[in-house]
Amino acid sequence: MNETSNEAKAPSQRTVIRRYSWLAKYDRDTINSILDTALVCQIAYVVDGQPFVTPTNFWRIDNYVHWHGSAASRMLRAQEKGIPVCFSVTHMDGIVIARSAFNHNINFRSVMAFGEAQVLGEQEKRAALKGFVDKLMLGLWEHARQPTEKEWSATKVIRLALDEVSAKVRTGPPIDDDEDYALDSWAGVIPLRTITEEVQPDPRLRAGIETPAFVTNFRWKG
Amino acid sequence: MNETSNEAKAPSQRTVIRRYSWLAKYDRDTINSILDTALVCQIAYVVDGQPFVTPTNFWRIDNYVHWHGSAASRMLRAQEKGIPVCFSVTHMDGIVIARSAFNHNINFRSVMAFGEAQVLGEQEKRAALKGFVDKLMLGLWEHARQPTEKEWSATKVIRLALDEVSAKVRTGPPIDDDEDYALDSWAGVIPLRTITEEVQPDPRLRAGIETPAFVTNFRWKG
Repeated sequence: MNETSNEAKAPSQRTVIRRYSWLAKYDRDTINSILDTALVCQIAYVVDGQPFVTPTNFWRIDNYVHWHGSAASRMLRAQEKGIPVCFSVTHMDGIVIARSAFNHNINFRSVMAFGEAQVLGEQEKRAALKGFVDKLMLGLWEHARQPTEKEWSATKVIRLALDEVSAKVRTGPPIDDDEDYALDSWAGVIPLRTITEEVQPDPRLRAGIETPAFVTNFRWKG
Repeated sequence: MNETSNEAKAPSQRTVIRRYSWLAKYDRDTINSILDTALVCQIAYVVDGQPFVTPTNFWRIDNYVHWHGSAASRMLRAQEKGIPVCFSVTHMDGIVIARSAFNHNINFRSVMAFGEAQVLGEQEKRAALKGFVDKLMLGLWEHARQPTEKEWSATKVIRLALDEVSAKVRTGPPIDDDEDYALDSWAGVIPLRTITEEVQPDPRLRAGIETPAFVTNFRWKG
């Protein structure tokens, strides 16, 4: 992957770059499946002309992506004013080794969205956070102590409508120049995958507390 | 991880947020190890007031991170003017399940850097790209057909000095409120790891070409 393959485009400035035009996929099922198998997004925004990009957890509900944070956060305070943001998610799926150095590539799935973020009101916020925790692991919300009023008030949730949104996906073997297929070089893909490793109970866990099934059964779906 | 734990800060505006102040680690060894085990970064920049964030491959040489792309790329054309960028890398290492919903967290390692990107000259560019390919897999540069002059001229390399740079790391079990340790709730960490799966030779690979050892032996180090 280089930036040609995943070019940032302003909503009104989408231009097709020939070499990678086949990467652009705009159907909603593709977009949703990329979003729903990711836990971390990147939010870019501008304060006083300075760009910032912040990795943060996010989750999708219908046509919106959501992220949360401290009410004291500089990022959220900036974003609650409705400033433009650029939202991005990337899965890296493999290293693509071609017959020529120029054609090495990365298999990936990515989504990019543009818009103005909105702060959720109190009731929407509570429903959205419960939805996030249970989307991560069904049963996790009921498992833990519920937030106190003080904890609720320390948390904000921001959402962005998925109106200006696009996905790009690269899969499969390398694409070499025609004449390079005659070379003696090996070519292929080294797939990458994120896995769940053995659960590590808290060393301070009280005796006799079993690991719940929703934890034992959890598998990363990215 | 929420944005409190990984707050974007302008170079001159670093403030400590009490709850996560222990996350900030600025030593260079920590920063380099996070960078050197990552393949994808996020570059944020601003064009006409609109923020963009682009995922792209990167690599570190000494005190610089580098990324490459098409000479026709909108991102690179913007960045070669020396506009401010925000560079970010994130590894997600685990899901941290606490005894209270408010204290769920993510184990992660991240780096953020600010500065103005510079376009490399022709000879520096060629050395940097060779360095990138061999950093990814030692032997890969010599393996493939070398770039033609036309291919070289279609490629640019941008670099950013790691002068305004910081790292944040969260590891270990959940940190619950004192009184919550008496609850009956399970707590612990589900570690996540990116692995290399079985190599997939190109279906168009010519008969008799063996997979080279530097491919067979490759293991993801993220």
